[in-house]
Amino acid sequence: MTDILICSYLETDLVDRIRAASNDVRVHYEPELLPKPRYAADHIGEPFQRTESQRRAWRELLGRAEVCFDVDHTDLEGFASHASRVRWIQASSAGIGQFVVRHGLDRLGATFTTAAGVHAVPLAEFVAWSMLAFAKDYPRARAQQREHVWRRFHTSDLAGSTLAVIGLGSIGRQVAATARALGVRVIGSKRTVDGIDPGTLNVDALFATRDLKAMLAQADYVCLVAPHTAETEGMIGTNEFAVMKPGAVLINIGRGALVQEVPLLAALRGQRLRGAVLDVAPSEPLPSEHPLWDMDNVILFPHSASTSSRENERLTELFIDNLGRYLSGRPLRNVFDAARQY
Amino acid sequence: MTDILICSYLETDLVDRIRAASNDVRVHYEPELLPKPRYAADHIGEPFQRTESQRRAWRELLGRAEVCFDVDHTDLEGFASHASRVRWIQASSAGIGQFVVRHGLDRLGATFTTAAGVHAVPLAEFVAWSMLAFAKDYPRARAQQREHVWRRFHTSDLAGSTLAVIGLGSIGRQVAATARALGVRVIGSKRTVDGIDPGTLNVDALFATRDLKAMLAQADYVCLVAPHTAETEGMIGTNEFAVMKPGAVLINIGRGALVQEVPLLAALRGQRLRGAVLDVAPSEPLPSEHPLWDMDNVILFPHSASTSSRENERLTELFIDNLGRYLSGRPLRNVFDAARQY
Repeated sequence: MTDILICSYLETDLVDRIRAASNDVRVHYEPELLPKPRYAADHIGEPFQRTESQRRAWRELLGRAEVCFDVDHTDLEGFASHASRVRWIQASSAGIGQFVVRHGLDRLGATFTTAAGVHAVPLAEFVAWSMLAFAKDYPRARAQQREHVWRRFHTSDLAGSTLAVIGLGSIGRQVAATARALGVRVIGSKRTVDGIDPGTLNVDALFATRDLKAMLAQADYVCLVAPHTAETEGMIGTNEFAVMKPGAVLINIGRGALVQEVPLLAALRGQRLRGAVLDVAPSEPLPSEHPLWDMDNVILFPHSASTSSRENERLTELFIDNLGRYLSGRPLRNVFDAARQY
Repeated sequence: MTDILICSYLETDLVDRIRAASNDVRVHYEPELLPKPRYAADHIGEPFQRTESQRRAWRELLGRAEVCFDVDHTDLEGFASHASRVRWIQASSAGIGQFVVRHGLDRLGATFTTAAGVHAVPLAEFVAWSMLAFAKDYPRARAQQREHVWRRFHTSDLAGSTLAVIGLGSIGRQVAATARALGVRVIGSKRTVDGIDPGTLNVDALFATRDLKAMLAQADYVCLVAPHTAETEGMIGTNEFAVMKPGAVLINIGRGALVQEVPLLAALRGQRLRGAVLDVAPSEPLPSEHPLWDMDNVILFPHSASTSSRENERLTELFIDNLGRYLSGRPLRNVFDAARQY
């Protein structure tokens, strides 16, 4: 019997699906020991503190678990100390590199699988929306609506423009596929490209990360999907903005730390960039006095583009598929590589 | 020799393309007799008044023209009186029914061809953007950005939702095709549907206009693309809002007059509709005191979604194709039907 512990809120019909997936598992789900979600697929939840007896009950469950669905976000250090038998953890996020290291979860010696792919469709749709917002000059319409001004202007076609995708994992490939469905030419970069047919990654041309600037120079839209690693931190700065087309638009759905903050603000203020759509910020939550809030050429989203109402359903499907693999000893999907940090 | 008069601003390379299209035409283009455009493909132009000698020169050109590219928007009555030899007028707009009648242009006895199809791609992209804006709950992000609030929320997937398109001319069919490329189920209505295979119109199901309510009840997004005719005026009112799904979103790229204003405001205020994206307004320009401006669930565009930077190029391609047909006596494309008013 494999003990599975659900460590963040999950809809009961989805818990039941996991229970029904195998006769060889015991699924533990105790919602009163977990924080309530603030929105669909919220894995952090409302502020929450266990009582003394709740803490004992939780630690007992933790100590028994061989498999965890998500981690205990309310007490990561406790999780790292007490999940002593855990061998596999299915994370609820795609980018867990910094997180695992920062909270010492790597010491557990467990296999982590990421949620890569779960967020691909909502994020690809968000990127399509972001490109269209600038193709249609929505920032101008937004300012005019605020000022009650009806003044006609012209828009442009998204079809025929070029999108550069930095990072071609499961999300980047879906971003590329959706953009192509709208008639966009897509180019992309990844660390190593030798021998890879661009078409298999849904792009028309492929660039190694060392050739990033050659790619940036071609793009009307630049979308960051790369994970946050030591290598990618601050990868977009003054030199990169300098080679972009005048009027290029930056879309960041990766991590705020990929972009150097001061050069970003300068590029936006000096119209070196036409604008930006940012689902992730230099620091989160973005402080209320930060200049990004009031820029007319910036559209801000509070790290919500990946959180679809269908996320938990997709996460559960991934978990059930991986559970079958785990129980039969086959390789899991989305295994986190601590060396590469993704 | 056929005399062609260009009646609104056109880029000189496009004028040259028309000149090069046939040896049997004389193309007259006198930009100093026309208003300057305020944006790309602006066919109205800045306020403009001809001097006495300019007026004489213009009337002489008008009196000679057998074919007109657009009409003279600065003096429509003068156009109707002085274009005495004109036999064919290529309009720069798709919806010219009300316009032709209001300004007495029907008395000219000329054939009008509309610009149907020229605006299809930019408008289809605009509708995709509009649906995505609500799928991603952008109105909430807009309010939070205005208030400097970083609070996470969940979005939804556009893929899998249902769009109803009212009006399946060239624009409606392109709207349907683009939505389908994003995984949306599309249904649509037109006046007569007998014997038509829905697939040829890019929709999954087809409804006659008399079955409009049955269609509306199925839709997450309702897009109005119908022309403004006596039949379509006010076609969306209290009874239609009442059958829509709670949380449906209205997208109007047709004409403001298709929707009854008071019921629209009530549906938006009462959250009977989740919201609306309006590229056309009850009256245009929308008066600055109108309540639509400040509604958090309304996104307003100043009748600009159809005006792409590539519009004049597409219009010129249509005109050249029609010119070949005209000169060889073949049927023209997009002939305006005064009885149907589109």
